[in-house]
Amino acid sequence: MKALVLEDVGQALRIKEMDSPAEKEGYVNVRIKAGALNHRDVWITKGMYPGIRPNVILGSDGAGILDGREVIINPNHDWGDNPRVQSKDYHILGLPTNGTFAEEVQVRSDKVFPKPRHLSIEHAAALPLGGMTAYRALFTKCGLRKGERVLISGVGGGVALFAFQFAVAVGAEVWVTSGTEWKIEKAIKMGAAGGINYKNADWKSFGKETGGFDVIIDSAGGDGFMNLVKIANPGGRICFYGGTRGNITSLNPQIIFWKQLSIFGSTMGSDEEFRDMIDFVDEHQISPIIDSVYNLEDANDAFKRMEKGLQFGKIVLNVG
Amino acid sequence: MKALVLEDVGQALRIKEMDSPAEKEGYVNVRIKAGALNHRDVWITKGMYPGIRPNVILGSDGAGILDGREVIINPNHDWGDNPRVQSKDYHILGLPTNGTFAEEVQVRSDKVFPKPRHLSIEHAAALPLGGMTAYRALFTKCGLRKGERVLISGVGGGVALFAFQFAVAVGAEVWVTSGTEWKIEKAIKMGAAGGINYKNADWKSFGKETGGFDVIIDSAGGDGFMNLVKIANPGGRICFYGGTRGNITSLNPQIIFWKQLSIFGSTMGSDEEFRDMIDFVDEHQISPIIDSVYNLEDANDAFKRMEKGLQFGKIVLNVG
Repeated sequence: MKALVLEDVGQALRIKEMDSPAEKEGYVNVRIKAGALNHRDVWITKGMYPGIRPNVILGSDGAGILDGREVIINPNHDWGDNPRVQSKDYHILGLPTNGTFAEEVQVRSDKVFPKPRHLSIEHAAALPLGGMTAYRALFTKCGLRKGERVLISGVGGGVALFAFQFAVAVGAEVWVTSGTEWKIEKAIKMGAAGGINYKNADWKSFGKETGGFDVIIDSAGGDGFMNLVKIANPGGRICFYGGTRGNITSLNPQIIFWKQLSIFGSTMGSDEEFRDMIDFVDEHQISPIIDSVYNLEDANDAFKRMEKGLQFGKIVLNVG
Repeated sequence: MKALVLEDVGQALRIKEMDSPAEKEGYVNVRIKAGALNHRDVWITKGMYPGIRPNVILGSDGAGILDGREVIINPNHDWGDNPRVQSKDYHILGLPTNGTFAEEVQVRSDKVFPKPRHLSIEHAAALPLGGMTAYRALFTKCGLRKGERVLISGVGGGVALFAFQFAVAVGAEVWVTSGTEWKIEKAIKMGAAGGINYKNADWKSFGKETGGFDVIIDSAGGDGFMNLVKIANPGGRICFYGGTRGNITSLNPQIIFWKQLSIFGSTMGSDEEFRDMIDFVDEHQISPIIDSVYNLEDANDAFKRMEKGLQFGKIVLNVG
């Protein structure tokens, strides 16, 4: 089978002919039609993940064909039985096990779900990891409800856009941040109430203008995190699933306890959350935002686009 | 009536003869037998609270007599209808309204509860604010369950000791921190599994020795908060109700989201939590730890003791 392979850290990805996975009890081989990129894939190519092995096939997101039917893949393995947190054995497709950027991927048979009918195979491929991560952050952790006001930081990223779409779907008032003006404009066209450029933000005015936020979904952390605490409403919930701006500094405990704020770290999601997310997307007929579709042969361009943060939505790879 | 009065910020408290509160529809006058100190009372005397007015009678904790029966007082006013957070109108006895350090206090009639039978009037007076704050932090926020491992920072303080006793009562394994060795020893005699002096702590070893913590109750914040994050178990919950060490610095988001940690700020408690706490104390026959009992005439000594942090348990004032 044709596969996109990371021969070694720091090298360009290469398409190689690899053996199809040998049949294995309890597992199925899905014929992949499309995959999608996550930041994780880029970071693995840079050596920023433990357990990288030569010739690993990357890719956590994928959709394809099994027994003649279109399916979507839950990338989880071994979440474990604690809904609060993944087990020590938890991993997802694409490292250490081979992932979806190949004509075939082997997964446990209970990880394969019928593709939601309203989605194309590319849209289905864009959904799994980002959708699950956003679902857990927004609903399981923050308990978002209709009518609440939500802020999504760094709109344009995969998880951020799913959080955005899911929040709009339940009837929340959704605002966004970005460092890029046109991304804010695009979000407003998609139903955002408004946005703020975090590079030149007057947070105090923003808090007043908007009325403050009940739920904030962040992926940056860093020095700016305290601004989010300040514009959180009393009883507010802040969840971060990333920390691209590094350590959070100068958190004022008095503001946090007086406002009764909850701050959650969240990553990925359980199998139950994956199923719930698929049902939610089905019920609300949500279509993932696709930034661009690349052929597998052009995968290195796709990776560069993500690395530069140029995308608005998921970057999809056409695999088979 | 005799009352302990703060004539002005920075002055010693004085006992003065004041008018008893005039009768008012929906309110009752409780004849106070004992009150208890909270840090809040000390900070008010230093001018560290907004809304301080001349000749205010301090005191949030109290127990006494109403219609010939011994009662305990819920210090809350106007929590509001959102269990997550107090309303803007929320306040507690002892500022701006006159408090419990007087022979009579006026409270809304629904704020008075029968004293749990197993408690003396001094023990009942020690319970309200600290018990309610600990209950909310430990159960409502952190969802502590039997068999979990808990760390209580700054044992010796009122809230910390209630959290300690409540956690022991539900069958948790409880560890403590303090800057004072004898306080750790005392906690161990009371059923703590062990403790660590935060002034010379090897947190890494402590984390290994104990196996890490599912729930951490903190009142310090500051530079040391990241140590608590490090020794929190995956799925762990950390709640702080104070920030005596100032701003929390250098929080690593990756550790927090990978361990799926929840960090809560919490203060006081709702009327429902007050009732639940009283029921809990009744059911588990918990007696508040009393550090010392002062006569109202010696209240300034009592305040000094709390200010210096010498106490282990609640400092009670004998009022009437």
